[in-house]
Amino acid sequence: MAEALSSDKITQELTKVTGWSLANDAKSISKKFQFKDFREAFSFMTACALWAEKADHHPDWSNVYNRVDVTLSTHDAGGVTEKDIAFAAYMDEITA
Amino acid sequence: MAEALSSDKITQELTKVTGWSLANDAKSISKKFQFKDFREAFSFMTACALWAEKADHHPDWSNVYNRVDVTLSTHDAGGVTEKDIAFAAYMDEITA
Repeated sequence: MAEALSSDKITQELTKVTGWSLANDAKSISKKFQFKDFREAFSFMTACALWAEKADHHPDWSNVYNRVDVTLSTHDAGGVTEKDIAFAAYMDEITA
Repeated sequence: MAEALSSDKITQELTKVTGWSLANDAKSISKKFQFKDFREAFSFMTACALWAEKADHHPDWSNVYNRVDVTLSTHDAGGVTEKDIAFAAYMDEITA
């Protein structure tokens, strides 16, 4: 099972992705995405859903029209793991 | 454009759907859906997304694994309209 990363390690890992913030309790990372419209927002969500099913690692997220707010955490590990960093990197990649 | 319904009218309309609640400010309705797993939850969201694009009427929603919390409101009308009731009825229908 993936192990929760220390705050220092997460901060270091977050330099490799773009616009992700560590929560005050260091247990999750989050980012707010904005798209042209709902179609683009939901297309992004669909790509992420396929990634999530394959990795068996799912996001906490909300959507209002063209905005998608994402929070990533590994509940089993009680914090942020390499899985969350990998998911964040994937989301950045497909929205680059 | 659709007109915002009165609280009384919304309450009457909500008798035709299942498990939807009117917000205290009477400007939105909401329901919490629970599914077997993420796959079922996201399949539901995908069906709703197609409905939303066709109707040009979009939900405010959040998802965590097998749960989807939905809030419906017609922002242009500043409240709940027949469009929201129709969307609620659709969501009930596909989860019945």
